[in-house]
Order: sequence, then C-alpha cells, then structure tokens
Amino acid sequence: MRGTRDFLPETEIARREIVRKIEDTFMEFGFSPLDTPALETAEVLLKKSESIRDEIYIFHDKGGREIGLRFDHTVPLARVIAENPTIPLPFRRYAIGKVWRYDRPQAGRYREFTQADVDIVGSPDVLADVECVAAGVEALRNVSTPDFRVVVNNRKLVYGWAEKVGLRKVEEFMRSVDKWFKIGEDSVRRELREKGLEEYFDSFVNLVDRDISDIEPFNEKMEEGLRELLLFFEYAESYDVPAVFDIRLVRGLDYYTGNVFETFVRGEEGIGSIASGGRYDELIRLLSGRDIPATGYSIGVDRLFALLEEKGVVKRRKTVTEVFVAHTEEVLPYALDVLKLLRRSGIRSEIDVMNRTLRKQLEYASRMGIPVVVIVGPREMERGTVTVKFMDSGDQVELTLESLLRELRREYKDSA
Amino acid sequence: MRGTRDFLPETEIARREIVRKIEDTFMEFGFSPLDTPALETAEVLLKKSESIRDEIYIFHDKGGREIGLRFDHTVPLARVIAENPTIPLPFRRYAIGKVWRYDRPQAGRYREFTQADVDIVGSPDVLADVECVAAGVEALRNVSTPDFRVVVNNRKLVYGWAEKVGLRKVEEFMRSVDKWFKIGEDSVRRELREKGLEEYFDSFVNLVDRDISDIEPFNEKMEEGLRELLLFFEYAESYDVPAVFDIRLVRGLDYYTGNVFETFVRGEEGIGSIASGGRYDELIRLLSGRDIPATGYSIGVDRLFALLEEKGVVKRRKTVTEVFVAHTEEVLPYALDVLKLLRRSGIRSEIDVMNRTLRKQLEYASRMGIPVVVIVGPREMERGTVTVKFMDSGDQVELTLESLLRELRREYKDSA
Repeated sequence: MRGTRDFLPETEIARREIVRKIEDTFMEFGFSPLDTPALETAEVLLKKSESIRDEIYIFHDKGGREIGLRFDHTVPLARVIAENPTIPLPFRRYAIGKVWRYDRPQAGRYREFTQADVDIVGSPDVLADVECVAAGVEALRNVSTPDFRVVVNNRKLVYGWAEKVGLRKVEEFMRSVDKWFKIGEDSVRRELREKGLEEYFDSFVNLVDRDISDIEPFNEKMEEGLRELLLFFEYAESYDVPAVFDIRLVRGLDYYTGNVFETFVRGEEGIGSIASGGRYDELIRLLSGRDIPATGYSIGVDRLFALLEEKGVVKRRKTVTEVFVAHTEEVLPYALDVLKLLRRSGIRSEIDVMNRTLRKQLEYASRMGIPVVVIVGPREMERGTVTVKFMDSGDQVELTLESLLRELRREYKDSA
Repeated sequence: MRGTRDFLPETEIARREIVRKIEDTFMEFGFSPLDTPALETAEVLLKKSESIRDEIYIFHDKGGREIGLRFDHTVPLARVIAENPTIPLPFRRYAIGKVWRYDRPQAGRYREFTQADVDIVGSPDVLADVECVAAGVEALRNVSTPDFRVVVNNRKLVYGWAEKVGLRKVEEFMRSVDKWFKIGEDSVRRELREKGLEEYFDSFVNLVDRDISDIEPFNEKMEEGLRELLLFFEYAESYDVPAVFDIRLVRGLDYYTGNVFETFVRGEEGIGSIASGGRYDELIRLLSGRDIPATGYSIGVDRLFALLEEKGVVKRRKTVTEVFVAHTEEVLPYALDVLKLLRRSGIRSEIDVMNRTLRKQLEYASRMGIPVVVIVGPREMERGTVTVKFMDSGDQVELTLESLLRELRREYKDSA
C-alpha cells in the first residue's frame, strides 16, 4: 500500500536485533513496558490540537464512532495516566511500536513507522530529562550508531526571550529559524522579512553560538530556562550524554514546556534527527485534569536503521538459520533426530521440506547464506555420525553428534 | 476504546517475556522474521472473501482509497509472496504482531489482539505442516503451557466424505458439528434436523472416535486426506508433537485445503483453542496467479497469556527494575557513579528522580516490589561503599562497589 512497506527477512532480521538491543537497554535503565492499542478514539487523538486532524488517520467505525490510529506513543501514555489515577509515580515506561501519520508519501517518508520511547511521568526534575535521554543515548551506542550528538534547547528560554522583545508569533518565527542549517542565516532573515518579523532577528542572532552561561536572562522565564539547561548539561556529563546547546533548535515548540532534544549523526544532519524528545508538563492535564509533569525521549527506529544500513553497521542476512540439515529420504528419521538435537541445543536449524536431491539442498543452503550444512546419509546413519560442511571454506568433516555440538557451540558462542 | 485494552507493566512485563520466548523458539526452528504493515488495501484484505467485510476494519483514507487493518498475518504473507516472485522457496517466516477484527465486543473478546505465526511457503509436503506445528508446540512448552494437545483433522477427508454422501452444504453442516463439545451430540442432531441436514449425521457419527487407520476411504479425496493424516502422525512422534485426530474439528474449512490444527489445554477446552493453523494451498494463487502451496500455525498470544495467568504460570511484577539507588541529594554525583556501574553490568537499575527523603525512596521501592535497594549517603561516599538492603529479608550490609557487583551477579544470574 502507498506509504507503507514490507520488511523482508533480509532487513527484518537485523531490524529485530536492533529493536531488541534498544529494548534491553531501556530495561537496564529501569523502564518497564506499556502496550497501548493502535486504535484510539478521535477525541483522545485530537485533544491537544484539532489541527493535526489532516495529518493522522481518522475514520468512522461501523458504530459511527470516530476513531483513529495513534500518531505517537505520548498521547496514549497521557491517556493511560488519566485513566489509571492509582499508578505509582514516577511512572517509568518504554513503548516500542508502530505509529501512523497521514503524510503525503514521498522519498523516505512513510505513513507507518516504528518509534521506541522512554518517558518518566510524575517528576518535574531535570534529572528525569537526563534519565530518558541517557537511556536513549546508551541504546544508540549499543546498536553501534556512529558519532552522534544531542542538540539541546529550552522552550522557556526561547519564550522568555520572545516575551522580552515583544515577539508574539514565536512559532512562525522559529519555523524560519529552523531552516538555518539548510538555507543559511541570510535566507532565514529574508524569510522573516517577508513574514514581517525581521525586527526581532538581530536580538535572536545575538543569542546564537553563545555558551549557556554567557546568556543574560531578561526575565524570570529565561532564567528558569537557563537554570534547567545548566542542570541538564551538568548531569549530562555524569551520564556520558554527548550534548550541545543550540538555541536554534525548534522541535516541538507547540508541545514541549522545558528542555527539548534532537539527535544528529555528525555529517548526516541532512537525514534529520534520529531521536528526539523533551519535557511536556502540560499534556497530561489536558487529558486528566491533573497537573502531572512528564518528560521523554524517542528513537525513530526506521531512520536509525536506514542510517545504520548506509554506514554498513548492519549485516544483511537472508535467514536466521545457522545449520541446514541435508538428508536423503531414506534416513529421514535419523535426520530428524539430528535436527532435534541441534534445536534443543539452541542452534537455529532447518531441514529440507522439498524432497530435493542432496545437491539441490546444498545449493539452497548456499543461496540462503546458511554457514553450515550437516549432511546425513545412509553411511552416516549407520555410523551414528554426520558430515559437516562449512560453506565458506568448503571444508568437510565427519563428526559424531557429540563433537558436532561441541564444534557448533564454539562456532556460535558469540551469537547466543 | 471499546474492544481494546492497555497492558500496564504489571501484565506487559510478563507478556513481553513470553513473546520473546516464542520468537526465540521460532528462530531456533529456522523461521525468519517478516514484518508487514498494519494497513492493507481493501482489495487485498477482501480478495479471498468479500463476505468478511463486516468483520474487519475497512475505511476510506483521505485520498478516497479503501483501506483496512489486517485481520491475520496470512493474507499479508500471501501478498508479499505475490509481490516478490524471486523470494527463494521454501520461504520460512515468522510474524508476531497485532491484528484487528471488528467483533462485537464481549467478555474476553477484543478487537485488537496479537498473533504469533510460523508459515512455510512453497512446500506441498506434510513435513512442512509438522515443522510449523512443532515450532509452535515447542514455543508453547518453552513458556510453560500446561498439558496441551493438538487436535488434527484433514479437509480432504471431510470433503471426500461429503462428496460421497452427497452433502453439499458442508460448511453449514460442520458449523453445527463444531458445537459438539459445548452442546453434545443430541443437540447437534437437533440443530442439523432444523437445517434439514440430519440425513447425513449417522454416516458422520460413524467416523467419530475412530482411529485414522480404521477409516475406510470412499474415494480418492478421502484417501489423500487419510494419507496426509497418517504421515502427519508419523512425523508428529519424531517431533514430540502431542497430536490427536478428531474428525469433528471444523477450523477454517473455508480457508484450508489439507491438514488443519487446533490446540487445547486439557480441562480448559472451554476457553477455546490457543493455537491453530493448517495447510492452505490455494490462497496464494488468488493473489499471485501462481500455484504455491503453503502451510502454517499461529499462536493466539492473548488467549495463551490469559491461560498462563490463570494457571499461575506468570508472575505479576510492577517494574523490571532489580536495584533502586536511594541517595541523599548531596551525594548525587557518587550515586550516579554507582548507578552507571550497575547498569553497565547489565543490572536493571533506577534512581530517585523525585527528590524524596531516603524513607520515601525506600517506601517507593517496597511498593514497586524492587528486590534490592542500594543506599548511598555521605558516609558511604566517604568510604567508597554502599549499603545494600535486601527488601524481602530486610537484611542490610555495607559493601564495596566490587563486592556489590559480585553479590548482585549471584542474585540475578538466573534472570539474565
């Protein structure tokens, strides 16, 4: 279907491994899984903003109710918190799964994609911000993401500045600033001129490329933003989070309330951010009426995977199978015994189910990139052995079942 | 939303563990992952039968195209095979994920549920049937499913018999037979009488409770069905598949073409089948025009999980966290060092992010069921130690960081 895609084993094997490593890291950081349905009522999906209606999947079910597909994991989380007032806080949860957006399909843009989120609900502390980012950063490291950094800004800082200079249309202003990296300072200025917002630009430019400690707060809001940023960077060092401050970071200015984050791979800024997040202290009140602070960080699994593929970090494999049991028909029972033994030893194994000749079976194993073929014929059955063929070298050796297992355990001890 | 539900950590932690064990088993059997979108075109979803339209989610997207949510993993698999004619056969794939049905919501019935499927595409051999069932059965064993058995029937056998006795409305007949276990033989007969199909019942009853080898084939179709069944049971023994034949098994008589399977836990037949499947040699032709045989087996993860919960096999836990680092504010940097050490050692750990007193931190850890609290105060920091509290016994001991890791590795060596 347009805007969607299949992940055949050749990519999905590696993708599953990456998702599992991310999940393991999230649990190492003390985040527990929460699973919510793909389907939500339109009321929940549109609660924060009716304006996203065109960008998401909304439809009527047969009962006439307006429902839709989740577009992130954050809104469902907020709903769960609203519906379960006795959940102990802080609530540390991860969620890994598909989300859907009704984007106009274009190169590299999909309508269905996977996000891996960690969030902490209930803590107003910057330490909670760092905990989420650090879990994500460690996950990125564990899947061998090359040289990346987390760009940090703070919404209070930007809004405090805007208040001071009398800029009302902050979002519109920042949307132009967002293009800085793509189109350069001069073009941003030109665009702001067209929008009638140029008068604020010099004051903003004055804040760009400054250390946080060099920025002088104009008001309490800016002061608060700077305090949160300073604390974040202090903690970030303890957590080995490679963070840099950039006041031009726009992300979610209509969504977030404090620190905000985007993550880029050096030299690959063009593909966009591979992980992002921030503090959203007001979203849960919208759904629950209760004031509950929250913060989170989300890895864009598809974009991350595309990058890891491009960088040659992930290996393409056609099959998970480690050992193919090739057999002639008359020794099938013996071949099944060998197969059972392999599988019970945790070695990923398959057997021919096509009634093919030994030669065809070996061809198939070779085409699938299966590294080891265990050949079982009448001679082997009689002697209680198997012939092992290592497909890479072509080496062949006859082994007892016991030595076969010992040999293979050595071969695969790393992949366990 | 009606007919959907959230899985809070208390259930989702155990559910994820079960899904992972199933996935590991599938890979052990040499099945590789395939991921397809939740969204499919209505054309694909309704290809086999327009009549299911009312039972699935179908809607118009904003471009006016009719699309819907997948209701199983088999139809998407058939589409993938159709769209990728160069995929090497046999294609052994697993798929674990949500599917959607527009059921009238009722007790225990959900509109969104998780299925874990293995299928082999390209082999007409009964060995492929057994490979799929055996992978599922081993997965059920690996998640400690209590005493279960696979009920097996064959569609050719039933259709061959129906041909012989001149029964045309086989599906209608078998829908009544399906209620045998619930309502008993007499009520089935009564229902068939109302349908005007009673005349065929005695001939059918004559086949019930017979050994396969005792059934005399009336025609080639029955003969073929019996041959496939006999072969299945022969292989099933090699594979340790606990299979029993029952000609009353109805499953998918409008979908499958050969052997069919349903899996019940003894004494829990009332909750229905926890896994099912069969051979479907005609589905892929519908989508691709090519004659490609296929067979598969699918675990109903939600029903399985409900059963494991009921049987007390799964443990409820509020959090994955194994160690809580309790600290006073002035030693935060030291506490963060301890935390980092724990996490890098693979121990699932969290730290207080609520600025709570030590007492409150310990209360929280206790409420969450976290088994170990590592307490870090000024005294510990000075001495380079931590105080470890085992929450179950209340035992407390001061340890160096090195002995802490040794101690915890012993504690958690099984959960790794």
